[in-house]
Amino acid sequence: MKKVGVAILGLGVVGGGTYKILTDNKEYFKKTQGLDITVEMALEKNVDRAVSLGLAKSQVASSIEEVVSNPNVDIVVEVIGGVEPAKTFVLKALMSGKTVVTSNKELFAKHWPELESEAKKMNAGLFFEASCVGGVPIIRTLQEGMQANKIQSIKGIINGTTNYILTKMANEGSSYEEALKEAQRLGYAEFNPTADVEGFDATYKLSILSSLAFNTKIAIENVHREGITGVSKEDIKYGKELGYTLKLLGIGKNTENGIEVRVHPTFVANDNPLASVNDSFNAVHIVGDSVGEIMLYGRGAGALPTGSAIVSDVIFAARHTNYHYTMFDNSAKGNKETKFVSDFTSQYFIRLSVQDSTGVLSKIAGVFAKHNVSIREVKQVAERDGKVPVVIITHISPESAVNKALEKIKLIDGVFSVDSVIRLES
Amino acid sequence: MKKVGVAILGLGVVGGGTYKILTDNKEYFKKTQGLDITVEMALEKNVDRAVSLGLAKSQVASSIEEVVSNPNVDIVVEVIGGVEPAKTFVLKALMSGKTVVTSNKELFAKHWPELESEAKKMNAGLFFEASCVGGVPIIRTLQEGMQANKIQSIKGIINGTTNYILTKMANEGSSYEEALKEAQRLGYAEFNPTADVEGFDATYKLSILSSLAFNTKIAIENVHREGITGVSKEDIKYGKELGYTLKLLGIGKNTENGIEVRVHPTFVANDNPLASVNDSFNAVHIVGDSVGEIMLYGRGAGALPTGSAIVSDVIFAARHTNYHYTMFDNSAKGNKETKFVSDFTSQYFIRLSVQDSTGVLSKIAGVFAKHNVSIREVKQVAERDGKVPVVIITHISPESAVNKALEKIKLIDGVFSVDSVIRLES
Repeated sequence: MKKVGVAILGLGVVGGGTYKILTDNKEYFKKTQGLDITVEMALEKNVDRAVSLGLAKSQVASSIEEVVSNPNVDIVVEVIGGVEPAKTFVLKALMSGKTVVTSNKELFAKHWPELESEAKKMNAGLFFEASCVGGVPIIRTLQEGMQANKIQSIKGIINGTTNYILTKMANEGSSYEEALKEAQRLGYAEFNPTADVEGFDATYKLSILSSLAFNTKIAIENVHREGITGVSKEDIKYGKELGYTLKLLGIGKNTENGIEVRVHPTFVANDNPLASVNDSFNAVHIVGDSVGEIMLYGRGAGALPTGSAIVSDVIFAARHTNYHYTMFDNSAKGNKETKFVSDFTSQYFIRLSVQDSTGVLSKIAGVFAKHNVSIREVKQVAERDGKVPVVIITHISPESAVNKALEKIKLIDGVFSVDSVIRLES
Repeated sequence: MKKVGVAILGLGVVGGGTYKILTDNKEYFKKTQGLDITVEMALEKNVDRAVSLGLAKSQVASSIEEVVSNPNVDIVVEVIGGVEPAKTFVLKALMSGKTVVTSNKELFAKHWPELESEAKKMNAGLFFEASCVGGVPIIRTLQEGMQANKIQSIKGIINGTTNYILTKMANEGSSYEEALKEAQRLGYAEFNPTADVEGFDATYKLSILSSLAFNTKIAIENVHREGITGVSKEDIKYGKELGYTLKLLGIGKNTENGIEVRVHPTFVANDNPLASVNDSFNAVHIVGDSVGEIMLYGRGAGALPTGSAIVSDVIFAARHTNYHYTMFDNSAKGNKETKFVSDFTSQYFIRLSVQDSTGVLSKIAGVFAKHNVSIREVKQVAERDGKVPVVIITHISPESAVNKALEKIKLIDGVFSVDSVIRLES
């Protein structure tokens, strides 16, 4: 039976989950995969943590050199997170010819070409399923299940923290602040929630997933990013009344005018399968030219779901030796020639405060018409103090035209304010 | 660049879709996969059909021998369907050392071990992603994305025809006969719909998927099968009122008491993601011990979706040469020791016609209690002529206990009939 030695760099939540799966299911993997996988060592400063998980003290390395010089280690699992020291460790492992499995989305989003180039040079494997959408095998699906397709779009709820917050706001009418506090209390959001709520985490993942989907490197700088901190419970409520659910979506589209990649709060029509993905669940919806619509749904984070992706990569690497997915060795790939769309087209949900008089709405409609923004639906929500909230949903329009129209609309007598402009996917 | 020669056996709907994808995307596969894939020939009686697709007459073989003796053919795609002559053709291809890619669920469900044994002997690849759930990469996910997991359950809407019919019945209140006619008119159901509506198609797929999920051969004889021909619009209506949607589910569970595999109409709670899978869409929900819940959703049939799965296998086979998934070469696999559950446990939706008098319901509840069947919900739906339909939803109970209780309940004075007993998943 083939023996596989694994070293785990970092025994935090995901490292601990990975260790547990590899040790608990050791016999199962012998039977089902024909692989005898052993965790040979771990690199972890907190030796007590390592010992409490079940490692012997002698298995706890104190330097990356100890790990990469161990001939029994075939596969190095990096689950430290962040750029450094993870990057140095991963490069040293690759330079030693070890295959690397990582969950590190930030590292991959920022330094993928450099890592891949080193892996290729040394004929070492490099796998990163766990970097995106936790246990959901979305990268394997893109690389090994949908190769027949030119992918037209990828849309995902790829951050569980924000989805938990938005679900809570929708179901319980909470404010953003209230929902964030509850998410922090339950451990879904960190004390400093910036990476999640400002969309950085989703941006890293969308950068990786859209690179794979569109066969070209999408840098994080190419991703338009907006977080959920400005989302109001009024918008969620009015959206609900019109049949839409607010989600933080990562959206990648390969259009005739170029590639479009963006992370922002988005209203999703309730009959879209993404609308019913709730709480901390994640989902990715893909359209391919052959397969049509596909959606994958599951847990995007957590010790065991992310550990599941790590171990899946360990097994994949062990069974497909000398198999390397190379993204950047072909002149058709790489982002030199990639054209990005700067003026998105989308449907829009627009909320205005206007004076309750019949003439105002007709003036607003007139300005939209002049800018070729076609209106799909108007809802005058309720009256209060002569100030009326009006929600307008447009047909698909260029964002520049919508913005120009709104600049003019702000000047209309009887329009008090433009309160929200939120993109919408039906 | 690596050259790959493909022969397609059968240019029907799926064969045509496969040919189209392979030829339309030839340049794309060179760029993205580094593979130069050519359809070298096809085995097809209808030469005109082949020519109209774009093949030269000289590329149309008239015997399997012509195909397997062609040294330029590396991969044989079998999309004829049914057991013979497909089985003979596949075996001849494997015997010649050709890798086989097939969409043939019936062949695979019935003769998998024999095919695999031949493939192994000849060191030929054998891939069958397209046999289950069309374009959705469910087999790749089970084999290459969820290997870390002991899979606890697999539940799927794995037949598009029946899902179309049931969706139509639910949305429009149609009878089974009306919905079937509409499905036939639209080409979703065949003139002889038996394979779909009686659950044979779903049984083949569940046999394959649960074999992979539970690492043991599940023969079609091991699958309990019930179709949808007995489904009434009343049940769908009453279920809807209680928050359940009726689906034809394929269910596999790996329980302490053994493996349980069954295809039957099932009520699904509306907050279960399977409940909102409508029309001809398919979806498979899997629970793994590490990853928790996962669901894959997409098109289960059609020329291009199924062609997508075929071409994905062709590319996978070409990139992972000498890679063989072997199901039956390990003593831990094979179904010799597999224990099957015969007495399912489930929740039940039970519809009765009773006399409208207060004492009857209490007598019914008493009989259930005596048989340890715990009642979760009772709904007395409406009155008519003193005959009242009553719907009872049970907690999880052994089917034998439910049946024994119902035998007694039928004898209660004031119980006219037991109209429906439908299993329910929350």
